[in-house]
Amino acid sequence: MANQSNLVTLATWMAGDFSNWEQAIANPPFFAHIRVCIRPLPVALSDRGIWLYSEQAYDYELNRPYRTAILQLVLTDDSEFPIAIENYKIKDGAAYHGASREPERLRSLQREGIDHLAGCKMLVQITPRNSFKGFVEEGKGCMVIRDGKETYLASEFEISEHEFSSLDRGYDPLTHERVWGSIAGAFEFTKKTSFTIFANLA
Amino acid sequence: MANQSNLVTLATWMAGDFSNWEQAIANPPFFAHIRVCIRPLPVALSDRGIWLYSEQAYDYELNRPYRTAILQLVLTDDSEFPIAIENYKIKDGAAYHGASREPERLRSLQREGIDHLAGCKMLVQITPRNSFKGFVEEGKGCMVIRDGKETYLASEFEISEHEFSSLDRGYDPLTHERVWGSIAGAFEFTKKTSFTIFANLA
Repeated sequence: MANQSNLVTLATWMAGDFSNWEQAIANPPFFAHIRVCIRPLPVALSDRGIWLYSEQAYDYELNRPYRTAILQLVLTDDSEFPIAIENYKIKDGAAYHGASREPERLRSLQREGIDHLAGCKMLVQITPRNSFKGFVEEGKGCMVIRDGKETYLASEFEISEHEFSSLDRGYDPLTHERVWGSIAGAFEFTKKTSFTIFANLA
Repeated sequence: MANQSNLVTLATWMAGDFSNWEQAIANPPFFAHIRVCIRPLPVALSDRGIWLYSEQAYDYELNRPYRTAILQLVLTDDSEFPIAIENYKIKDGAAYHGASREPERLRSLQREGIDHLAGCKMLVQITPRNSFKGFVEEGKGCMVIRDGKETYLASEFEISEHEFSSLDRGYDPLTHERVWGSIAGAFEFTKKTSFTIFANLA
């Protein structure tokens, strides 16, 4: 079973500024140069677990992320998936664009300012190779509107101390055909900067 | 059969600055924002056909194209593919990086400065929908080294007055498995700026 120390390790590995620069320059033009920046919230939104803010953006427009999320890392009672990551949406998301690199701006965020996303929990296992691997919970319930079309999300990631890979795809709820997402493979990120997760405990 | 006028139309449609911006913002992060800039050579490298210089680059580093080519558009005797595009490599390619947007720099280019790429000719047909469609010639002979591995190129494009799509993939010569390239689909470009192909005839 996982314990608080595993949760801290996962949060510590996630907290940072990631880039897939190496992948982008090795495979032009098939992988955009993407940055993922995950910042611990300076003020936790509840007593339970560890709270993070995540932004994904093209490297050339870091302040216009195409995806943002509030993540809550918690321990579970499930021996297969001892950690879960709950997923939330900031109601006024645009107001926080760029805040992953200006974390003081996140102080104003309150529990009432976010909505829980049902069906979008990531279930996380600890692997034998010293990494964490996560999968969106079963049920095809994490709905994503894309190009006006409703799809359900299939998402997985793996993270270790310095590397982070992620693969997202959207499927049609009726035909189960892939509607969007990478068919070429996962994004492969390396950690460029680490952020402490303990500053917010001070 | 095609005539000189078809050749001029194809060259005119190709000569310009293309972007897949609309595709990139509609599908983040699965399509990088790419620019293709094709410029008529100010001094033709032979009397035969129409000569162009092509650069493909990430929008955020236009002066570091990841692919450049010299293209020679010629008429053929083949009724199915009445136009061919011969492909050449500039020996000192880096010296011309950015020249698609500073075409005066192309004046120094001479026939001795380029190498013909065998097996990489594109065969072009005129479609009923007022476009040209090209395919790399048969024979699996257009070799591309990628990540230290030799592959043969499968490439196709379609171009009309304002739109240009292209799809490139590399295959293993022994197993015929796909080694690199888009599995997600073609790049879809629209023309942002047109260049005249007649300036060089002045």
